[in-house]
Amino acid sequence: MDYEGIFKAAIDRLHDEGRYRVFIDILRTKGSFPNAHCFHGHNGPKPITVWCSNDYLGMGQHPAVVAAMEEALHSVGAGSGGTRNIGGNTHYHIQLEAELADLHAKQAALLFTSGYVSNEAALSTLGKLLPGCIIFSDELNHASMIAGIRSSGCEKRVFRHNDLEHLEQMLMEAPLETPKLIAFESVYSMDGDIAPIGAICDLADKYGALTYLDEVHAVGMYGEHGGGISERDAVADRVTIIEGTLGKAFGVMGGYVAADKNIIDCIRSYAPGFIFTTSLSPVLVAGALASVRHLKQSSDERLAQQAGAAALKARFAEAGLPVMESVTHIVPLLVGCPVKAKRISDILLAEYGLYVQPINFPTVPRGTERLRFTPGPNHSDAMMDEVTAALVEIWGRLELELRRAA
Amino acid sequence: MDYEGIFKAAIDRLHDEGRYRVFIDILRTKGSFPNAHCFHGHNGPKPITVWCSNDYLGMGQHPAVVAAMEEALHSVGAGSGGTRNIGGNTHYHIQLEAELADLHAKQAALLFTSGYVSNEAALSTLGKLLPGCIIFSDELNHASMIAGIRSSGCEKRVFRHNDLEHLEQMLMEAPLETPKLIAFESVYSMDGDIAPIGAICDLADKYGALTYLDEVHAVGMYGEHGGGISERDAVADRVTIIEGTLGKAFGVMGGYVAADKNIIDCIRSYAPGFIFTTSLSPVLVAGALASVRHLKQSSDERLAQQAGAAALKARFAEAGLPVMESVTHIVPLLVGCPVKAKRISDILLAEYGLYVQPINFPTVPRGTERLRFTPGPNHSDAMMDEVTAALVEIWGRLELELRRAA
Repeated sequence: MDYEGIFKAAIDRLHDEGRYRVFIDILRTKGSFPNAHCFHGHNGPKPITVWCSNDYLGMGQHPAVVAAMEEALHSVGAGSGGTRNIGGNTHYHIQLEAELADLHAKQAALLFTSGYVSNEAALSTLGKLLPGCIIFSDELNHASMIAGIRSSGCEKRVFRHNDLEHLEQMLMEAPLETPKLIAFESVYSMDGDIAPIGAICDLADKYGALTYLDEVHAVGMYGEHGGGISERDAVADRVTIIEGTLGKAFGVMGGYVAADKNIIDCIRSYAPGFIFTTSLSPVLVAGALASVRHLKQSSDERLAQQAGAAALKARFAEAGLPVMESVTHIVPLLVGCPVKAKRISDILLAEYGLYVQPINFPTVPRGTERLRFTPGPNHSDAMMDEVTAALVEIWGRLELELRRAA
Repeated sequence: MDYEGIFKAAIDRLHDEGRYRVFIDILRTKGSFPNAHCFHGHNGPKPITVWCSNDYLGMGQHPAVVAAMEEALHSVGAGSGGTRNIGGNTHYHIQLEAELADLHAKQAALLFTSGYVSNEAALSTLGKLLPGCIIFSDELNHASMIAGIRSSGCEKRVFRHNDLEHLEQMLMEAPLETPKLIAFESVYSMDGDIAPIGAICDLADKYGALTYLDEVHAVGMYGEHGGGISERDAVADRVTIIEGTLGKAFGVMGGYVAADKNIIDCIRSYAPGFIFTTSLSPVLVAGALASVRHLKQSSDERLAQQAGAAALKARFAEAGLPVMESVTHIVPLLVGCPVKAKRISDILLAEYGLYVQPINFPTVPRGTERLRFTPGPNHSDAMMDEVTAALVEIWGRLELELRRAA
């Protein structure tokens, strides 16, 4: 067997399609996010500004988060030392799960090592426990939800993105006495649009379905206490399972689900991806706990982020840059070609010290390659002017089209 | 649909079988491992001694590890802020991957958020890239390997545990020109036995198969530099892919694979479980880097652990306790009943302040329920006397059989 040839060919395909990924070598600078240090390449080493972090609110450098982590590190040490069942359950884990259950007004919550694992483990386990369950899945659902649904072994029916009519038609066609689960997201992270959660719950009620809502790009950022779009829209109590992450707006790492006590107990007791893995480091859990608690009682970061996103969208639109429709904090700029998207990103980083990653297939559909900006509370007006001017210059240099200014 | 009834019944089944899991609420005490604090229940709050941690060498409290994490926390902050491709690749990740590649004498390495994810992502991706691949899997392989093999879509053939004849027979029966992968572990963590790695590699050579070796219960602990059993047996260069964890002997959290550059590049480029997840927190990566570097040049911890394991096995055997055959640092005590195993564990914790978790199905086969002790370099002679005496008393109280002393 020519194994080497097979692996080599798989890599060559990526080069041929212009979507071979090169990771940039950076360290962010705590205390001065979004600034960072770039080590190699791109005319570095040099300081850069990060425009594509999912640490949306800069909580990764918040003094309360850092202090909590330092304290945990010194009192309990680096890792948990085991699975949740065998030595790796700490008091911090219990406290954070209670805090997250409260955040989403649910009876219970369960931590995972990542949002990816929480979706994979929860969806696959729910699907396996419900005999003959059909899972209705939004066509733009994240890879981790798709992995969980596949691994559940359930029949999957994919409805058009945020399309209530299509979803209802599919629900109507399914047998009444069959268990049903509707899996969807609140904020879709690559387009920045939002699901009609309440209306989806209406359909769930009408056709007797459970609902599974991924809020990873919304928790911490929407709702009076950071409970996500389901809190903002006052529909959290209507959603069966809410899934979130500790690695984006909360600035740390890890994932979770929140739901009724029995559902959480089932996932806790039956999901291999939860049972057979070393639990989150207590250092991370302590940091996430501080972050969740802070964002429950402070809206300053959320408001500053929303103001920043609005300001950047306005600047891009005024300059005629092809900013995509987005009703959230996400600011995508359409390029439509993986090679050009990478070229713009390379120039921005090498010549301007501005870091925004090109987004290509399979993260977004081919032909919709884009640059995705995530302005946060720490991006200043001057930084926004700088990135807008740089993009206009590059757009001209590459002879890309600018829209007529509004 | 009576969803609530279905979930309730699933929980009731666990209670009926005596294997409903209750997590104990503790915090380990940095600087005095294996001591910890138990918060609720078990006659607590009170101090306890942990006998079942997978932080096998106590590296979670090592000053070099803690110092590295503190420095990273203060210089770069709590989380990475993104996937490896989008903002979450840090200089620490690059350094640690180079260090791990070197540890296993491979060209490259790749980090994951956990060992579970590394097995799931690597095995599923390798299987998908090799057309028609058959995966030969040891019957005692870990749940994460089983998940990866299932998700690869490959045909799986399960060989009897460490049985070379059975494996060879299966390899012989497979078509010559079909890609083949043999997936196995070095140290099997619930029994403490070791795979004949060299002999399996001989078979792989003879029948043209790749080899995938899980060393999570061996890295840091075996081999002159902590490269695992494959280093100890001088066969690392013969194994195609070595998988390891940062959450056990290295004392932190996370997983990895090490292999040829092209194989690693394929997993990096094609595995959803790697691509679509926030990368490991730089704080963890910095800690793991310090831990790997320390254990590469220090054998003190390894030697102390081996001495501790030998001493505990000898004490158990002398006392007539049913210690299972183990050639490693793992000391399993056979009980053979989930209810009794839990009862012994409960008494140990409530009356003696000694924490060892009962291990039941599905972690081990039904009928082989056990207590699993993991003595480390910080368990003193006095602690060993204490736990042995406690067990003998409980064995008597529950009228369990003691073997005739050797």
